[in-house]
Amino acid sequence: MTSAAFDVLGIGNAIVDVISRADDAFLKTHDLTKGSMMLIDEARADQLYAAMGAGIEVSGGSCGNTMAGVASFGGKGAYIGKVRNDQLGGVFGHDIKAMGVSFETPSATSGPATARCLIVVTPDAQRTMSTYLGACTRLGPEDIDVARVGSAQVTYVEGYLWDAPEAKKAVLKAFDAAHAAGRKVSITLSDSFCVDRYRDEFRDLVRNKVDILFGNEAEIKALYQVDTFEKALEATRKDAKIAALTRSEKGSVVIKGGETHAVPAASVKKVIDTTGAGDLYASGFLFGFTHGKPLAECARLGGIAAAEIISHVGARPDQALKALI
Amino acid sequence: MTSAAFDVLGIGNAIVDVISRADDAFLKTHDLTKGSMMLIDEARADQLYAAMGAGIEVSGGSCGNTMAGVASFGGKGAYIGKVRNDQLGGVFGHDIKAMGVSFETPSATSGPATARCLIVVTPDAQRTMSTYLGACTRLGPEDIDVARVGSAQVTYVEGYLWDAPEAKKAVLKAFDAAHAAGRKVSITLSDSFCVDRYRDEFRDLVRNKVDILFGNEAEIKALYQVDTFEKALEATRKDAKIAALTRSEKGSVVIKGGETHAVPAASVKKVIDTTGAGDLYASGFLFGFTHGKPLAECARLGGIAAAEIISHVGARPDQALKALI
Repeated sequence: MTSAAFDVLGIGNAIVDVISRADDAFLKTHDLTKGSMMLIDEARADQLYAAMGAGIEVSGGSCGNTMAGVASFGGKGAYIGKVRNDQLGGVFGHDIKAMGVSFETPSATSGPATARCLIVVTPDAQRTMSTYLGACTRLGPEDIDVARVGSAQVTYVEGYLWDAPEAKKAVLKAFDAAHAAGRKVSITLSDSFCVDRYRDEFRDLVRNKVDILFGNEAEIKALYQVDTFEKALEATRKDAKIAALTRSEKGSVVIKGGETHAVPAASVKKVIDTTGAGDLYASGFLFGFTHGKPLAECARLGGIAAAEIISHVGARPDQALKALI
Repeated sequence: MTSAAFDVLGIGNAIVDVISRADDAFLKTHDLTKGSMMLIDEARADQLYAAMGAGIEVSGGSCGNTMAGVASFGGKGAYIGKVRNDQLGGVFGHDIKAMGVSFETPSATSGPATARCLIVVTPDAQRTMSTYLGACTRLGPEDIDVARVGSAQVTYVEGYLWDAPEAKKAVLKAFDAAHAAGRKVSITLSDSFCVDRYRDEFRDLVRNKVDILFGNEAEIKALYQVDTFEKALEATRKDAKIAALTRSEKGSVVIKGGETHAVPAASVKKVIDTTGAGDLYASGFLFGFTHGKPLAECARLGGIAAAEIISHVGARPDQALKALI
């Protein structure tokens, strides 16, 4: 195994977030489940956008946020994801490269527009997401550069990719390429509804492929269909090599075989917008992991990144994370 | 004169802001003058954007910001400005309408893209703007609905429109229509470099057409080519019917004939980004003016709106301004 060109290579849905504030009544009127991510088609996206208040547009996508975090810590990152050659696709590409992340996936020149995630932030700082996948559905195995994947210490993907069948194939190709090169692979469960959609496949992956699993309390309980975090922990311990499980203000728990590291959350003055908390936790953890830190320290770095991101609107760091550690 | 359908009708360059942080060295490297607005062509816009860090996109344009402010106070506003039928044009249209501002100007279906303003915010909270006017150059007299203008108490325009010759003609048509309907017209000087470009025309307008003049200290000094605010005040008093002149942390001074109202600035906990301070001052002032408030109260409302806008990133209100008064 040669030395790694990248610390982390991320594969994800390349999405531009449209963030707007609204009250709980808005969620009710538009049949949105608070805190969840729902997939929508273009017509519904247009209708919902028309109903939303004035917004800000900012590059997002769960894995894109994580890679921005890795770069912000000073890590070397690469990203694979599909946009269209439209204005928002240009914004996404600009932003991820401006963070210092290598991004070479060719834009689609036909087909659906760059993906948008319509995010409604309620006064309790919770975010509710409606995603139009658009060009993301065009990511496929042909976008996976095997040599590039083999040159990253960890290949990290989002469970959301399972919503695009060709993207899932791309992930499986990348996982094989990473392992063939003696590297590690990692996945986040993304969302409890996403887990419901792909439970069997995710369980199989965790048991047989994944080296580092990320998930929050709701997601890991959904994966094993248990009603307490303790039971979920027990089940995870049997399946996963390493799992980093987040619990909001209770911090996170990392398990590896018999080891358990419970790490408290970093303090936050005021929670403004929880969008990206899990994504940024993963960035801190993976930055630490690829820099040889012990697991508890990886979790602490994850907590610091998550605390930064929930202190302001938007899911990408407002300040250099490396300055916070 | 019938009752007014709109409190304020604004005409401006319809622009999407791209806001990014950078240090002073970035300004030097890219030959940017701190605090100013510079016009750039598309090639320069692409080059500068490539060099900028990750950004957020948010609807802007000086007058668009003002109209968002008027609506946020609870005022009835209409806006005239030109975007292209592209993604950023869609964002601009969505956002201004989502604020409750009537916006019916047809999008251009060919020609240059929707305008972008590349805004660099330095650690001292100053903003430096580079504007690619794009589709704004296609605004013309044919976009002025005379009846609509006549149905607004005040028609408010930005001096920046002088940079697009057809847009200037549109403004002059609107001013005549407003006066013919017994309404008032108002202009902001926009920027001291803009004043340098059109000094004679602006002086003529202030003397012969404008009912309410807005400007900051640098702009009014540039208009009369004097070196102190006091001299500028004296000159303005001779020319302008009503002038509201802003002085950053020193508040504002409103003059009308022999009357002078000096109003202190509203307090701000921490200045984050000064983008839009003047635009929002105008919104508060015009909301007050069109609701029959005395001039000093108009200035106070302007100060409240300006204080809100400089407390966060972006040039449109984060919270309902009517809740602050």
